Amino acid sequence: MSSRDRRRISITALEGGVLRRRTDCLAEEAPLEIHIAGVPPLVTMRTPGQDEELVAGLMFSEGVVRDASEIVSLRPGAGARGRIVRLMLRAAARRRLPLAERSSLASSACGICGKPSFSTALLDRQPPPRGAERIGPHVLDCLPGRLRAAQGLFERTGGLHAAGLFSATGELLAAREDVGRHNALDKLVGWGLRGGSLPWSDRIMLLSGRASYELLHKCVMAGVPVVCAISAPSSLAVDIARRFGVTLAGFLRDGRVNLYSAPWRVSGAAAQRRG
Amino acid sequence: MSSRDRRRISITALEGGVLRRRTDCLAEEAPLEIHIAGVPPLVTMRTPGQDEELVAGLMFSEGVVRDASEIVSLRPGAGARGRIVRLMLRAAARRRLPLAERSSLASSACGICGKPSFSTALLDRQPPPRGAERIGPHVLDCLPGRLRAAQGLFERTGGLHAAGLFSATGELLAAREDVGRHNALDKLVGWGLRGGSLPWSDRIMLLSGRASYELLHKCVMAGVPVVCAISAPSSLAVDIARRFGVTLAGFLRDGRVNLYSAPWRVSGAAAQRRG
Repeated sequence: MSSRDRRRISITALEGGVLRRRTDCLAEEAPLEIHIAGVPPLVTMRTPGQDEELVAGLMFSEGVVRDASEIVSLRPGAGARGRIVRLMLRAAARRRLPLAERSSLASSACGICGKPSFSTALLDRQPPPRGAERIGPHVLDCLPGRLRAAQGLFERTGGLHAAGLFSATGELLAAREDVGRHNALDKLVGWGLRGGSLPWSDRIMLLSGRASYELLHKCVMAGVPVVCAISAPSSLAVDIARRFGVTLAGFLRDGRVNLYSAPWRVSGAAAQRRG
Repeated sequence: MSSRDRRRISITALEGGVLRRRTDCLAEEAPLEIHIAGVPPLVTMRTPGQDEELVAGLMFSEGVVRDASEIVSLRPGAGARGRIVRLMLRAAARRRLPLAERSSLASSACGICGKPSFSTALLDRQPPPRGAERIGPHVLDCLPGRLRAAQGLFERTGGLHAAGLFSATGELLAAREDVGRHNALDKLVGWGLRGGSLPWSDRIMLLSGRASYELLHKCVMAGVPVVCAISAPSSLAVDIARRFGVTLAGFLRDGRVNLYSAPWRVSGAAAQRRG
């Protein structure tokens, strides 16, 4: 692995009640544009590195390319808007391109994707998240156990992701589960929208897995000031959290927590510079 | 949680070298179609339950719907092709629908999605996976450690998913990593496509996380006969594995493994009925 796929940043770590600044290493997450003559560019989020393999593999898995000879050329190109891979296909493969629409690839034709900051256009319109200031560190510690208690044994041991909404004092207000982590959060947001509780000022969100760009996007849209994840955040998740003033906490387990942004919302970390 | 979001099935469990049949519980994964007048149906994979919340939350997160009053109606409807949610939006929200293209939603306009079996059309064209018969159970045990050894300390503790390709005797042939589990596998498949090693008869694939429908789809396309996951498979992943004769192993950790399909490829489980 090269240095391109990770990034070192300064964070606030909380362990055994003690706060300290230290450096942490993040998995890099960044958009890649796939340019194919005659169709709008496709955009996917990925960890930089082996981009040509990624594009070749995606085209094969989606049934567009059946063997390597159908790829006329596949080469990197850095555009003004970020990293690009240019793909030329034989005619037979080009006719199968609609198959790729089935995939997780987003089209940048909507005008949001492909900008330098990927798709923060929607977020720029959001008011900054408010409330949930001076949260006790012990409140964060309690969250994972309370979310697990709300899940059944199967959900705890099996294959479901969860998203839990908490008050600023750590009371579980609602939880949703799904095989897809995005879906668990979408279900929770849909519950809030229909019940009239959005925006979620003064609330804490707990995500059962990792925190990606996409999950932070959804939390900012819902106005959540504090987002916690049991596992690691990606580089782009931290970028979004810092830009929009969300307190992002990761590795929330075993009495430990890493604060990646806006640590001032956590008591004791208030002396830390805002950022 | 209701019984709709899980499914009980019969599996072969291997623990401490002993094989036994037992029942296991799977997280349900199934397609949901979102029907909105005037646009092609959107399709997303999800765990059934709270489907209306999922659709409302997704439309809010993507910026299509700004408050609940923009949803005129949102109701379930079971079509011949599976579960459907019908959404009626006010004109202002309807004009923002192109924003949803940014999301992970696939359009069913390509003719693949939305069929009862979702999108096995591509897979039906694939020859059945071959080879990797009579694998020793000890071979499976060794795979996770070998994949971890190939990853750096950061990758083991941090935020990267991995996919590893192994020979039938457990030799690591190649590994790729990414913040996205689909990307890690796509990079590996792209490596194989460009190097001329596909289809991967007689090979074992190890996935660092859970096994979803999408990952099994990619493995079947690549011709892999044995797919192992450190964590749980979804119901649809097991369906795909059983239908296409792939041996799917889950919870591959601590000397234990669950065989969800085609257990006969694992020595000692050969007496089990094929399925």
